[in-house]
Parts: sequence; C-alpha cells; structure tokens
Amino acid sequence: MQTTDVTVIGLGLMGHALARALLAGGRTVTVWNRTPGKADDLAGAQRAATPEEAVTASELVVVCVSDFAAVADRLGKAVTLVNLSSGTSQSARDTARWAPDGLDGAIMAAPGGIGTADATIVYSGDRAAFDRHEATFALLGGAVYLGEDHALAALHEMAVVSLMWNLLNGFLHGTALLRAAGVGAAGYVPLAAKGVETVTGWLAAYADQVDAGDFPPLDATLDVHVAAMDHLIEESRHLGVATELPEFLRSLTSGIDGSQGYAALVERFGRPPGR
Amino acid sequence: MQTTDVTVIGLGLMGHALARALLAGGRTVTVWNRTPGKADDLAGAQRAATPEEAVTASELVVVCVSDFAAVADRLGKAVTLVNLSSGTSQSARDTARWAPDGLDGAIMAAPGGIGTADATIVYSGDRAAFDRHEATFALLGGAVYLGEDHALAALHEMAVVSLMWNLLNGFLHGTALLRAAGVGAAGYVPLAAKGVETVTGWLAAYADQVDAGDFPPLDATLDVHVAAMDHLIEESRHLGVATELPEFLRSLTSGIDGSQGYAALVERFGRPPGR
Repeated sequence: MQTTDVTVIGLGLMGHALARALLAGGRTVTVWNRTPGKADDLAGAQRAATPEEAVTASELVVVCVSDFAAVADRLGKAVTLVNLSSGTSQSARDTARWAPDGLDGAIMAAPGGIGTADATIVYSGDRAAFDRHEATFALLGGAVYLGEDHALAALHEMAVVSLMWNLLNGFLHGTALLRAAGVGAAGYVPLAAKGVETVTGWLAAYADQVDAGDFPPLDATLDVHVAAMDHLIEESRHLGVATELPEFLRSLTSGIDGSQGYAALVERFGRPPGR
Repeated sequence: MQTTDVTVIGLGLMGHALARALLAGGRTVTVWNRTPGKADDLAGAQRAATPEEAVTASELVVVCVSDFAAVADRLGKAVTLVNLSSGTSQSARDTARWAPDGLDGAIMAAPGGIGTADATIVYSGDRAAFDRHEATFALLGGAVYLGEDHALAALHEMAVVSLMWNLLNGFLHGTALLRAAGVGAAGYVPLAAKGVETVTGWLAAYADQVDAGDFPPLDATLDVHVAAMDHLIEESRHLGVATELPEFLRSLTSGIDGSQGYAALVERFGRPPGR
C-alpha cells in the first residue's frame, strides 16, 4: 500500500542526503537501509522493515546503494524505479529490461551539494516517469533529462568523472612541480582556475571537431603541444620529480599527424582496446 | 640609441599579436624577426635590421621566439629584457645570470587572446622592472607578478599547461566513450563544464592539503575513486574503446593508502623519477 511520496533505498552518505533533501522539500519519505540505525536522524521518515515493504510504500522509489546488484532482485515491484547508484551503462540497460518504466540517474555532486544548485543529477530512460516526478527531482539539485536510452546517464557520468580525475591529476602534478621548486600550492590556485576557465571555453569548438571527425588546429598544432610536453618532461627531470604523467601525455600523441589540433587525440581514446 | 618605447623580437603568431597590442595601445614599437616580411602588416612599427639594432632601440625588449637559445647571445645589450618565449625554469635561471635586471614571463593565452582580459601573462624576476613597465604589460593582458625568482613564471606555466592537457584528455576521452555509444559530443559540453566547475571549486582545499602534506578525504576516499575507475575500465571495454587512459588513472593510485582523499596522489607525482 502506498503511504508516502518517495521511498529511498540505501542510506549511505549520498542516500542520506537525498532523503534529507526530500524531507526538507515537504515530501513524505519511506527509507530502508541494509544495516539499521542509519535513519535515526531522519526525523519524519517512515522506516521499512524490508526492501519489499519499502518498494511498495511509494510510487517513486529512489535507490542509491554501493552494490545495486545485491538489492536488484528485491526491487521488482517498484512502480517507478529510479536508480541513482553508480554503475555502468550495461547495468543500466540490464535494469531497463525488467524496469522499462523507470529511470537511471547519475549524481554529479558530493553529498554536501545535494539539495543545492551545486548538484546536477542527470536522468535517462522513461520520459513520462521523468516528467511525472520532475518537481521531486528538482528538490535534489538541477535535474537534466538526457533521453530515452537508459544507458545515457551512466555514460555521461563516466565521461564526467574521467574528466574530473584528469583535471585533478593535472592540478596535483602542477603542485608537485611547484613544491619541488619550493613553491606552495595555495598561490597556484587562481592561475590554475584561470587555465581551467580558458580550456573550458575551448570545449564547444573541440566537441564540434569530434562530431565532425576533423581536427584543424585551434589554439596550436599538436606538434607545438608535443614540443611543450618535451619541455615539461625535461623540467620534471630537472626538478627531480616523477616524469610518469608527462611521459604518458606525450605517449598519447605518438602516431598522430602533428599538423592537426589537440582534438585529434580522440581517435586514440576511441580506438579498440589493445591496439 | 633608444628611439621607441618597446622592441619586440620574434614575429611568429604570438610575437605578432604582442606587437599589434602594443601598437594599439599607443606605444612606439621596434620589431625584428629572423625571416623578414613578418612585419609587413604591422603599420607604424620600426623594423630593425639586426637583433643588436633592435635591442638598443628601446629600453624595454620583449622576446617571443621558438628557440630562445638561438638568439640569446645577441640580446646582451638589452636594458630590460623580458623573455616571453616558452622555456624551462632552468633556462630562465640561466638567462637571469646575464640579465638579472630582466623578467621571465609566460603567456597563458592563445595569440587571439592577447590584448584582452582573456590573456593572463605571469612574470618573475626583477621587481623594479615589472613595476616600471606594468602599464605596458597591461596592454598585453592581465599581468601577474609572481616573485623575484626568475624561474617562477616558467614553473607556473608548466603547471598550468599540464593541467590543460590533462583536462583536454579527460574531455576527449569522455567524448570517445559517448561516441562509441552513438552519442554526440556537443551535448556533453554543458555537463563537462559543470563537472569542471565543481572540481575547480575543490582546488583551494586540495592545495591546502598539498601544502600541509595531509590528505583526509574531501569528496570521497581514494578507495571509492578506485572502485569508480574500475567501472570506467569495464565500461570502456564494454564499449570497445581504448582502456589506456582509465588504466593509467588507476595505476597512479596503486600503493597509496586508499582511506585518504584524492590529493594523496601528489606524493606519486612528486616522487623522484623512476621510483
């Protein structure tokens, strides 16, 4: 029997933040977590004794667990299943087979950002389900519908987290270079942010090149970039810090026509594994 | 005899843009380029016949060439030498030995950005030289003085370009994943920009951790990141695209205590080469 507006399954840091944002938005909420006690500070939430009970308590069931496969077979009775657990696009498509009227989502935020404009959550799958619950999703953060293919949210999440790791690596590598020269990292942040802003401004043009499959140089030719990578390797050696990251960057450019722009590297990233 | 305000040596794309911005700002400019003819569209610029003539034509001499070593020994008579050519911190220190009253600079912009707020140019070396010419530097873009150590500009440039390449790699890798699933890159740009903005907001806290040498988890533990990297490798395999980049990302985390935050990777980047 449906007694609440939303059910939240999984009360880890993220699930907990989701439930709190829903309660703060005036929704009635049922919760379930594998280990009990996680709902103790969620005032007003109904606690379900089993996943089955949780799933039937609301029309909308939001799942955010570390191991979706471990609970999946207990969620079959959900009317509208929204899986916000991290997972691959394949697992999203697998879930769509038994829950075609649901959505797969990906949270692009830390738990502390949930319920604020800092959080973006992307959704893919059943359009009607998204439209029906968009106002509820808006309580969690900016809600973006990507399309009917259930795999889209996971794919975009993968793409964004890869971007985040690479960005962080680049930043941390920079701080290591500076530290080796006796320079602190804090003063580097504004310059790093400016560099990031500059490159972010290039992304739309790079994306157009990727979509067109044609990579004329924009900021500089790949040859110019490779020469600068050699500088970076030399600099790292001179400073006595690992050359692993710059050597990897340089290795990615090998075998690519250097008169093109940097976006030509997409061919390398997109080619079959092991080639 | 000094006859102009500024001399620009090197009229490649970047040097050309510098000279044009100086002329636009009302400065009188002497130019010299290894191959002649590059000044043909720089109306109002004085052309010097030799580097020696160019160097003595102005108190301020800005050099922007692809091979600084090839012209260095002809610049010794410059009163205030500002080297905006790309180079390592070691070459900046070498130059400082014979031109201690000069500056080393690094241009963080494409030629098209010169003379606009989009360009940042960092300078290091003689403070008095920077102060004396700050108004002229402001014609080229935002001018940031980093300190007396001539190496600082090159070091910060290296750090920023490493960041830029890593960011671009992350973005292009993401577009390769999406393309393999039949999804275009253009629609990914706003999400990518949002992800970049999120991570940029973390940089100050990460920098503080690097400076303190202590890496408590901020957004997530390294273990959580590694699990997500495994997802990314699996996803890449499933989509039939190269796993090279995600496997490299994952390899960087090996041997680091996974209960720490992501900034712990700075130890890996900062360690001696080959260890």
